[in-house]
Amino acid sequence: MQNFRVLHIFGADKKNNMEVLSDTGNQFYKTKCWRGFLLFLVSISLLVSFRAKAESGYRLWLRYNCIEDPLMRKHYASVIRYVVFHRTSETGRVAFEELEGGLSGMLGIAIPSSDRVSKSGAILAGTFGSNPDISRQVPAYIAGSLGREGYLIQTRLVNRKKCILIAANTETGVLYGVFHFLRLLQTRQDISLLNITSIPALQLRVLNHWDNPDRRVERGYAGFSLWDWHRLPGYIDQRYIDYARANASIGINGTVLNNVNANNIFLTPQYLLKVKALADVFRPYGIRVYLSVRFSAPVEMGKLPTSDPLDPEVRNWWKRKADEIYRLIPDFGGFLVKASSEGQPGPQDYGRTHADGANMLADVLAPYGGVVMWRAFVYDNRNKDDRAKQAFNEFRPLDGTFRKNVLVQVKNGPIDFQPREPFHPLFGAMPNTSLMMEFQITQEYLGQGTHLVFLGPLFEEVLRSETYACGKGSAVADILEGKCGHQQLTGIAGVANTGTDINWCGHPFAQANWYAYGRFAWNPRIASETVAEEWLRMTFLSQPGFVEPVRKMMLASREAVVDYMTPLGLHHIMGYSHHYGPAPWIKDAPRDDWTSVYYHRADTVGLGFDRSPAGSNAVSQYYSPLREEFADPDRCPEQHLLWFHHVSWNKKVVSGRTLWEELCFRYCRGVDEVKQMQATWDSVEKYVDRERFTAVKMLLGIQVQEAIWWRDACILYFQTFSKQPLPAFCPPPEHPLEYYQNLRFFYVPGN
Amino acid sequence: MQNFRVLHIFGADKKNNMEVLSDTGNQFYKTKCWRGFLLFLVSISLLVSFRAKAESGYRLWLRYNCIEDPLMRKHYASVIRYVVFHRTSETGRVAFEELEGGLSGMLGIAIPSSDRVSKSGAILAGTFGSNPDISRQVPAYIAGSLGREGYLIQTRLVNRKKCILIAANTETGVLYGVFHFLRLLQTRQDISLLNITSIPALQLRVLNHWDNPDRRVERGYAGFSLWDWHRLPGYIDQRYIDYARANASIGINGTVLNNVNANNIFLTPQYLLKVKALADVFRPYGIRVYLSVRFSAPVEMGKLPTSDPLDPEVRNWWKRKADEIYRLIPDFGGFLVKASSEGQPGPQDYGRTHADGANMLADVLAPYGGVVMWRAFVYDNRNKDDRAKQAFNEFRPLDGTFRKNVLVQVKNGPIDFQPREPFHPLFGAMPNTSLMMEFQITQEYLGQGTHLVFLGPLFEEVLRSETYACGKGSAVADILEGKCGHQQLTGIAGVANTGTDINWCGHPFAQANWYAYGRFAWNPRIASETVAEEWLRMTFLSQPGFVEPVRKMMLASREAVVDYMTPLGLHHIMGYSHHYGPAPWIKDAPRDDWTSVYYHRADTVGLGFDRSPAGSNAVSQYYSPLREEFADPDRCPEQHLLWFHHVSWNKKVVSGRTLWEELCFRYCRGVDEVKQMQATWDSVEKYVDRERFTAVKMLLGIQVQEAIWWRDACILYFQTFSKQPLPAFCPPPEHPLEYYQNLRFFYVPGN
Repeated sequence: MQNFRVLHIFGADKKNNMEVLSDTGNQFYKTKCWRGFLLFLVSISLLVSFRAKAESGYRLWLRYNCIEDPLMRKHYASVIRYVVFHRTSETGRVAFEELEGGLSGMLGIAIPSSDRVSKSGAILAGTFGSNPDISRQVPAYIAGSLGREGYLIQTRLVNRKKCILIAANTETGVLYGVFHFLRLLQTRQDISLLNITSIPALQLRVLNHWDNPDRRVERGYAGFSLWDWHRLPGYIDQRYIDYARANASIGINGTVLNNVNANNIFLTPQYLLKVKALADVFRPYGIRVYLSVRFSAPVEMGKLPTSDPLDPEVRNWWKRKADEIYRLIPDFGGFLVKASSEGQPGPQDYGRTHADGANMLADVLAPYGGVVMWRAFVYDNRNKDDRAKQAFNEFRPLDGTFRKNVLVQVKNGPIDFQPREPFHPLFGAMPNTSLMMEFQITQEYLGQGTHLVFLGPLFEEVLRSETYACGKGSAVADILEGKCGHQQLTGIAGVANTGTDINWCGHPFAQANWYAYGRFAWNPRIASETVAEEWLRMTFLSQPGFVEPVRKMMLASREAVVDYMTPLGLHHIMGYSHHYGPAPWIKDAPRDDWTSVYYHRADTVGLGFDRSPAGSNAVSQYYSPLREEFADPDRCPEQHLLWFHHVSWNKKVVSGRTLWEELCFRYCRGVDEVKQMQATWDSVEKYVDRERFTAVKMLLGIQVQEAIWWRDACILYFQTFSKQPLPAFCPPPEHPLEYYQNLRFFYVPGN
Repeated sequence: MQNFRVLHIFGADKKNNMEVLSDTGNQFYKTKCWRGFLLFLVSISLLVSFRAKAESGYRLWLRYNCIEDPLMRKHYASVIRYVVFHRTSETGRVAFEELEGGLSGMLGIAIPSSDRVSKSGAILAGTFGSNPDISRQVPAYIAGSLGREGYLIQTRLVNRKKCILIAANTETGVLYGVFHFLRLLQTRQDISLLNITSIPALQLRVLNHWDNPDRRVERGYAGFSLWDWHRLPGYIDQRYIDYARANASIGINGTVLNNVNANNIFLTPQYLLKVKALADVFRPYGIRVYLSVRFSAPVEMGKLPTSDPLDPEVRNWWKRKADEIYRLIPDFGGFLVKASSEGQPGPQDYGRTHADGANMLADVLAPYGGVVMWRAFVYDNRNKDDRAKQAFNEFRPLDGTFRKNVLVQVKNGPIDFQPREPFHPLFGAMPNTSLMMEFQITQEYLGQGTHLVFLGPLFEEVLRSETYACGKGSAVADILEGKCGHQQLTGIAGVANTGTDINWCGHPFAQANWYAYGRFAWNPRIASETVAEEWLRMTFLSQPGFVEPVRKMMLASREAVVDYMTPLGLHHIMGYSHHYGPAPWIKDAPRDDWTSVYYHRADTVGLGFDRSPAGSNAVSQYYSPLREEFADPDRCPEQHLLWFHHVSWNKKVVSGRTLWEELCFRYCRGVDEVKQMQATWDSVEKYVDRERFTAVKMLLGIQVQEAIWWRDACILYFQTFSKQPLPAFCPPPEHPLEYYQNLRFFYVPGN
């Protein structure tokens, strides 16, 4: 592919020379590695002809380009001289190939294999059971503590030879260890004395694909579904394999293939064969396959008169379906269910509870070790109570009634994946239930396919939120890990942002959100700064002149989108249905809770949703002292102010500005922040290959325009309530309000 | 991208060693080029670490890998020492970059540029006006004969120095010459004494994209539309540039961006800006942009009471729309129109003729140099005459009534892109009209996304068909070139097979059909054998051990699909609506002409559509002596037998077999032919990179299964009429007829 794009590079000599100095070309490493010891033999002019090619982004963070610094490469090559890896399964095979391929790529030399440790410089990899050299190194109690997926990477003396041990109880653990070890090199870490033990904090680390059988992806902004159902099972796209590699590299161990708004076709024999083909591809990478199911399938597919979960025939139908699935896919993960929610069928259609529905499915899966992930994303327009309260009210009373193999899957906030929400009050409120987190990696409400928004800070903010569920020190991450309650299972789900775009995620920086999700899923206590730095080094290059400003840009990007879309706790004021662009004026939708005015409640007095005890009292769903803090407009964190309070336009906020001024200030600041991102990106042009540089530059151009659109449309709209002049620091809007209100968009992706 | 896939390669040593000997890796050329003179310096073990990577197919036939044979490379490098290219436009820039990039890639050294010819070994490129060294070489009358797009490539003495001249009247011509010159190297031709003049035979060489605004592609089997409308105009995908390069490399000079079943949204100001962005990308590559339009747009968009082409307000509406378009896109190509056809609106809704409709649009485009391409694909279920006759009957009387800037676009056959049809009788029947050809590159009826069918032989068969329109020697190609009539414009259209799949066309060999279309469009007299050989050498490698068997396989593949789908003149017996798989039993559709029984007319007596004078007399639409030949079942070419005749099951055919036996023989032979293709492909494994080898192997596996499905379903179905036993040479079907009849397919791509 890269030669095809060589023309960009060959066209501009100035640019080329700069790129020769950089670490970006995916073919370049060969030149670089040769140069280390052949420079004296070949002329520079010859080398120049082999210069950096544009990168499509397909390789994600698994590029394994040759290390450009000869000293660094020499250091690594002195420590890594050969590989000893006794392997027994397909997982061992792919781990070995990844290790060999990655090392050869980065070191620019073939790394030989050996049967045993005979001299120093071995990478000794494998399970404890595979090789006595490994088992002798690690006491059984330590090995036992690693569990099924943990691993250790340690510098050891084996047979008196210094080597690096990558060991685990299973080959899946070894595979994770291999990726970790490669990451050390990819991020240019010192590996002379390693002592790493890593165990995932959560058991189920799952991607949710909202992919339909026609390959449209609900809320997908990176093309279409990766799953080419028509050509399955006969045709196995190389992308399936690379998808599995990418996921394994960040510890993701499950994938729900189809949309939660589920289509029964996936349960037909014809499609189960296709699902099996994918499961067979993913299995060596430690990834189990799950399906979203439609609760009414027994009626629609089985021709039963009911789908009542307490009906024996219904249960039998599901049991036979489970038998059929497990005959094909013995390690099938289980079902994800969106039921009695947004028009989907569910147990409430038969007067049953969510627990009745979930438990019936859990019972048919239990003999096979399958689980049910039951979504708590429920709200009902007929229920006139605050939408933010409804899931809590529905599920909290069911605590303790779910089967052991049910997880209740709760979105991070009580509304719907907004740029910022307070954490969902169910976290901590169901101590006798296995709760799992649902994050959205795809940027439905955060700029969709064109905005650079690094979600690490969002994940971190949610996971570190203090719930007080077991007193101080009960962060959301603690709840997920089961440290405050009696969880049987732990887990986390991310709504995927992958698609058929060559670079997988549409926006080159959207790859960072897939990466970050996996890293937080493995370790909810990781810092988003660490994640950003890792990702940048692996995906682009390690030079500080690039990494430092771009990391800073990434870390600031989420606050920017909050500023120019929904500052101060505003939420859900996006375009109707497609959620593209600003539309705070939406009011006459079929459901109140699908309007914008429902959420922002602007009037001549002020702005915001009163969820204090004087209002909907949603604050009561949080533990003390949080509920009191949220309830008090003077103590409520300003970032949630309009989420919890209807605030007077003239109220002074922390800055000393009035609410109206502060609102304008934030909208304007958001635009400035994006312009700063543009300036940052322009300043690193010399480091980045032309193709990715240009792609990001064009997308930042769109982002600036759309941030301005958001700012101007929202300020003009809210001004009709505040009736106050635009503060001097805000530039005049480009168009009148009517212009923005009359914009119409068709064929918005993901809708 | 390739490193990401390195694992395939690193995993299997036996395979790797073979690949080291082959010419397939897209990075490999660096190793090879180094090896030429560094072999004595570096150890083999080192080289092995840089072995062939899998190829995604993204680079199509423009790979420019380093030439592996050192003698060949030395020969080329001795002839090509530097480039002199005075360029003035963006087209010159891209031609120069292509030349420099291609040469550097293939020769493995940077090729310097110079201002003038100072020593031997120059590639002297440019327009006649750009450089006196060029104009002095070529007499004005020769330059004049090249026209706007022709070029010459000649070995010359310039300033007494031997050099290669690539010259044309325009930089577009130079660009075509550059691609031709690069192709000589890519296909390993001798370039020591060149004397090439090339002028396209047809003026308009156009792709038709049946792409919808939601990115679904009607009859598309390679993913979704390349045009990411939502992110246009702000985001220019690298694919747009590479698409333009690929087209320019084969001489395609126009592209109709949207489906002939047109959506008015493309004529809105918002979308015209997006169209303009694409036109700006394509312009340097000599490609003009066209749009399909909906005839009823004046009513639907303009709120006029009518779209009657003779209404002055309607004409004004179109004129204003044309003004608007040309303000944005001064070289906009014009409109493609499907009108009064398959439910589309058209002039007949107002009692007007196709000429009335086409001429009205032509008049508004004429001041800008735009054209109308008016499709002749019309048929009407209310007309009880043979569908095959209807377009002729509709259009023939209109001959001579179309404006000069109208082309009537005629499908190659009178039904609809079947595996085999006789040529369309309109070719030769409208001597006073500019007729253009419409081929289908996408394989709607030829196995869709999974069958290897090289269409070169189909294009060649049609273009070489004798029409007798101006006596003997009036092939369809002559008609298109205007040699038998008074065409003002000449042209050809191909319904594109491109999509978002990384390899552009879904099936790796489907790329050959895009390539072949362009080559036949430039030169309708080229041999499909030549085209296949060129494509194989450029896309894979040049070694005879690979090229010869695979070329043979490609050339046989179209006859194979005719055999296993529609032998002996059968047609249109595919699955309803989606056209996937066999369905000769379709009979109760909303329209008779959308059933299979309409076309095959099987009964207890025999099989086939009687189009002789005793039947529909469609033969009368052909010139003598063809009409008599087609009318006589004993002289009718056997390949068209059941197209023109209802033939008794017991009639003896050329082979001596009865019709029933011959039918079974052909179906069975078709399967055997695909199995032979499998064997051929397996035999060349050692030459091909793992990724493409595996992809084609999997797809051939599907093709065998589907060929068997076709064979068994059709034989069983027709047996219910013939009531004769299965001949001994046919294996028993795998399932009973009901099994095939009950198969249902949902979400078939392209439907």
